[in-house]
Amino acid sequence: MGRVYLVGAGPGDPELLTLKAYRLLKEAPVVLYDRLVDERVLALAPGEKVYVGKEEGESEKQEEIHRLLLRHARAHPFVVRLKGGDPMVFGRGGEEVLFLLRHGVPVEVVPGVTSLLASGLPLTHRGLAHGFAAVSGVLEGGGYPDLRPFARVPTLVVLMGVGRRVWIAKELLRLGRNPREPTLFVERASTPKERRVHARLEEVAEGKVEVRPPALWILGEVVRVFAEKEAPVDALALGG
Amino acid sequence: MGRVYLVGAGPGDPELLTLKAYRLLKEAPVVLYDRLVDERVLALAPGEKVYVGKEEGESEKQEEIHRLLLRHARAHPFVVRLKGGDPMVFGRGGEEVLFLLRHGVPVEVVPGVTSLLASGLPLTHRGLAHGFAAVSGVLEGGGYPDLRPFARVPTLVVLMGVGRRVWIAKELLRLGRNPREPTLFVERASTPKERRVHARLEEVAEGKVEVRPPALWILGEVVRVFAEKEAPVDALALGG
Repeated sequence: MGRVYLVGAGPGDPELLTLKAYRLLKEAPVVLYDRLVDERVLALAPGEKVYVGKEEGESEKQEEIHRLLLRHARAHPFVVRLKGGDPMVFGRGGEEVLFLLRHGVPVEVVPGVTSLLASGLPLTHRGLAHGFAAVSGVLEGGGYPDLRPFARVPTLVVLMGVGRRVWIAKELLRLGRNPREPTLFVERASTPKERRVHARLEEVAEGKVEVRPPALWILGEVVRVFAEKEAPVDALALGG
Repeated sequence: MGRVYLVGAGPGDPELLTLKAYRLLKEAPVVLYDRLVDERVLALAPGEKVYVGKEEGESEKQEEIHRLLLRHARAHPFVVRLKGGDPMVFGRGGEEVLFLLRHGVPVEVVPGVTSLLASGLPLTHRGLAHGFAAVSGVLEGGGYPDLRPFARVPTLVVLMGVGRRVWIAKELLRLGRNPREPTLFVERASTPKERRVHARLEEVAEGKVEVRPPALWILGEVVRVFAEKEAPVDALALGG
């Protein structure tokens, strides 16, 4: 029975792979990968590559992924299960680990650079934010998240929230967040196609902001930490 | 004027460095590093190494770090500023970036594997936690954090909270968290000296739990996701 490595692929830039992820990709006889794994990262793996991606909230496929993992673990000396960002943050990595352990398959988790940090912005900053939270805009199965526990945190990062940004913004306003709060969408963070869109929370609620998935959405004062002057921001390269 | 790379060193294991961090360490004429950077990571850097660490909450040294960064940026073609975990999470990375930009020094942020994820546990899990939050137990300057915005999140990760664990636990209980909530301390995560201590929140509040810094403290149901059987957990290697 081959060991399954649950590996974080990082936010996109292949240089943000960990040394361990790189080594495993180079050696793996087979790599099972998700929709959001960057093609430049995949190109590093010479072994067989199996696409097991699913759309946001498309839950029924998770069992199929489990079956595929088990089949490949039985057929190979080891298997890499590659996930965008970190495998244990909003990636259903825990479910896959649990399934494999229950079937006697040894598992190793290899953390990666989470997409939450791919903006290069500080999520905490003295005097502005002493902590942060992250929530997904889409629950497993497609449901809407309960945002109440997250409404008051200084910095909030929303993943998979682009399609529901108007609903999320309205809900956060209803729960007491400041309509004038600065927010930032980062489309395809750390890739050559990265695009940034600044907007106040109320503007998002009014449906005025155009943005396409996949994108991070960061809410909070940290969004303008580096915005005080134009020139210095140009001197700041972010993780690319 | 040399560019300053603000580089995340990851949680400890040198194989959890990113390819980019590894390359920069190998080439850097000088590396300014923090207290929590693993010595095995430092050993990879052949250039000059300058210790600029400070104790938790020891704020006055931050200005000294800024001056040192500026001096080295003026003296070298480029400088690596190495921080444990990710440089922009509880690392005062934002302040250093801002200071350097104000002085005309180009800066690049190289994200790393955040220590928050070094436990290998899922911070989110279907039916248990649809999001998470992270907060520091010690504010810049040594103050106590306002925990109210974080009291209701499904998974809470506390960094630099070991010394104040009794106060933090009592405060979270006062704010309505469940006394029976399972929590986990992970000392020196992802290093050979890693040690895990499980405890209920009320036990921590009663001063019954022995644990030494540096340690992650994870609160929430996700802590026992993998605890259903003993044997399978032994088959789970975590990022090491």
